[in-house]
Amino acid sequence: MQIETLAAVLAARVRAESPLVHNITNFVVMNSSANILLAAGAAPVMAHAPEEVAEMAGIAGALVLNIGTLTVPWVDSMIAAGCAANAKGTPVILDPVGSGATAFRTAACRRILRDVRVSVLRGNASEIASLVGVTASTRGVDAADGITPELEAAARVFALRESCVVGISGDRDLVTDGRRLFRVANGHPLMTRVTGTGCGLSAVVGAFCAVARDCEPVEAVAAAFGFYGLCGETAFRAASAPGSFYSAFLDALHTVSAPELECGLRIAETPA
Amino acid sequence: MQIETLAAVLAARVRAESPLVHNITNFVVMNSSANILLAAGAAPVMAHAPEEVAEMAGIAGALVLNIGTLTVPWVDSMIAAGCAANAKGTPVILDPVGSGATAFRTAACRRILRDVRVSVLRGNASEIASLVGVTASTRGVDAADGITPELEAAARVFALRESCVVGISGDRDLVTDGRRLFRVANGHPLMTRVTGTGCGLSAVVGAFCAVARDCEPVEAVAAAFGFYGLCGETAFRAASAPGSFYSAFLDALHTVSAPELECGLRIAETPA
Amino acid sequence: MQIETLAAVLAARVRAESPLVHNITNFVVMNSSANILLAAGAAPVMAHAPEEVAEMAGIAGALVLNIGTLTVPWVDSMIAAGCAANAKGTPVILDPVGSGATAFRTAACRRILRDVRVSVLRGNASEIASLVGVTASTRGVDAADGITPELEAAARVFALRESCVVGISGDRDLVTDGRRLFRVANGHPLMTRVTGTGCGLSAVVGAFCAVARDCEPVEAVAAAFGFYGLCGETAFRAASAPGSFYSAFLDALHTVSAPELECGLRIAETPA
Repeated sequence: MQIETLAAVLAARVRAESPLVHNITNFVVMNSSANILLAAGAAPVMAHAPEEVAEMAGIAGALVLNIGTLTVPWVDSMIAAGCAANAKGTPVILDPVGSGATAFRTAACRRILRDVRVSVLRGNASEIASLVGVTASTRGVDAADGITPELEAAARVFALRESCVVGISGDRDLVTDGRRLFRVANGHPLMTRVTGTGCGLSAVVGAFCAVARDCEPVEAVAAAFGFYGLCGETAFRAASAPGSFYSAFLDALHTVSAPELECGLRIAETPA
Repeated sequence: MQIETLAAVLAARVRAESPLVHNITNFVVMNSSANILLAAGAAPVMAHAPEEVAEMAGIAGALVLNIGTLTVPWVDSMIAAGCAANAKGTPVILDPVGSGATAFRTAACRRILRDVRVSVLRGNASEIASLVGVTASTRGVDAADGITPELEAAARVFALRESCVVGISGDRDLVTDGRRLFRVANGHPLMTRVTGTGCGLSAVVGAFCAVARDCEPVEAVAAAFGFYGLCGETAFRAASAPGSFYSAFLDALHTVSAPELECGLRIAETPA
Repeated sequence: MQIETLAAVLAARVRAESPLVHNITNFVVMNSSANILLAAGAAPVMAHAPEEVAEMAGIAGALVLNIGTLTVPWVDSMIAAGCAANAKGTPVILDPVGSGATAFRTAACRRILRDVRVSVLRGNASEIASLVGVTASTRGVDAADGITPELEAAARVFALRESCVVGISGDRDLVTDGRRLFRVANGHPLMTRVTGTGCGLSAVVGAFCAVARDCEPVEAVAAAFGFYGLCGETAFRAASAPGSFYSAFLDALHTVSAPELECGLRIAETPA
């Protein structure tokens, strides 16, 4: 199946099946991630209490771990939920918000990656760099550098070694499992002027992975990146400033059609 | 007074008196519940610290307890606030988000119901079923079944025994105090594609109860359900996708008029 | 430089330099404060873990402390971050949400003011009154009284004694460092029907202070108040109800131009 067709199929399946996506995420984006998932057709649930995370992860179609506004007890809950998801074979997406910005966040990500089998690691260039062994400059939660050749190579090695997919957001996104590599050119710069768009992408990656029964994970992740970026482009045609853009973006996630996806996606696979 | 007229009177009174509604609610909806209350004319305050919950509940016109994203210390704060509200005769609304989905949430609700006199229990079918003694299937925070005759009967028994009002959201809402029973047909399916609309309804029920001096609680709750659902219908006429719908919904809460309420409400009382 | 020109210069500089603003703020407004800062051109980061607050505050251009939804561990984190900011000479903005409403909040503010050198104290009349030694009535987080002559005098004394700027939001805002005093007439009443607009102003004050190298702090704060209020006026011309107003407000923060600021600001300095 063409990757564009696959994206349309997975987007339709998310709307039809409404997979339950369990998020343990940061306070800034809990509302927007829930709304992004709902607009795309999925069913979000947020739960972080140690007493219930394993039970909730056990009934979910995907688990999304996001380390923004992190504290230590939350890391414990993430690991408990992650182990429950691993036991069921449920995909686990890790969004390392701000990894590299403080030692605490980098260490927390490394601890999660050690104790949980992560299916997808999705972040910006400096966040991913801090975890795959590349020196990068970070400022807060922003990427300071782009996706350098060095980062690309390190991401491939990391993905192969950890048997996971690495997705890096940027001007042009990169998605790889170490063997295959996709570049996604969809998206719009105004997405960076709305908080939580990166976190929301991680949540949508979770929804796509929850319904990806008949493709490779790396394809499902690349499809989710393209779907999400195209909705950003659609939103920009309706609204050119961040407040109205956010509303239009949710609208686009809800209404984007299969033909629009098949025509508008700009996902290219690079030969290995 | 006709229930439609009562709804218009209470909505006007919320705008005129701006009752203080103290919310101990989940992280996903803190922002949206505050905005929903503000749009309707009420004054929201969120506070959960054990050091201040009783003091805050003591100056509020209503207390709304919502167990989404719950942890144990929050249950303690909810009970402390609930007891302070009980001591003043302030209405307490309980929203059992996700009750039935995990054992932890169900147990937390039962503990609150044991230690606090709850005036209104508002949830969806599976949440209410988990608390009134009906077996239901739940998935995350979504209702899996509708409002079955068995659930309706159990809700009436529960309401009578606990001297409270039970409000169940669904395609057609049900509001009962055990003696009287209202069905509310207002609302729009798109409300389920925006996070926190159920939680926001519980908050608006709090605002209506805070100013309901001259009617029965069950009438005030039915009026709030109708008011809220009608605003959803109004919003849908302005915006048919979830991002713009949410903005239009807040606008409708702010602008809906008494004639619109008197004409548009579809609240029917079922003879006992 | 005229204050109107200064406001345009600082607004342009926020967009050009995108200062990192570290927020330790309440759960209700984390999302909206992040979006307000992004719309204005700044780079928000939210972090409150004791393990990282000092490190994060050390790389930020401003630190914003906001005591809504406060608990004791957060006060500790605020003080740790505040001391790190003080050590670097980074401006610290304190927003005393609900100070005066409960003893806990008032005490927390006093503790922060004792342990951290605060550059700007920004709140509404009753919040500021509770901290500068004026008796005022508060209800929840709303100001019950306006800016009385007694409060104005006490604010000047407090600002002089603490070497800080005091900014009081109201029908007409007041900004003073004890020596100089500005009144800002920009703003729109609908801003009070959207949650977090006051908190968002404190965040924008942080962004302006982060780039205010060549003016007095009191001027930068007055400029931020005017900029913010003018965007509220612009938003109201596009949208007259709170849901659409919030979107339009974010849009205005992103698009307001230097000529609009120079023409539309209504900031008057009162001779001392």
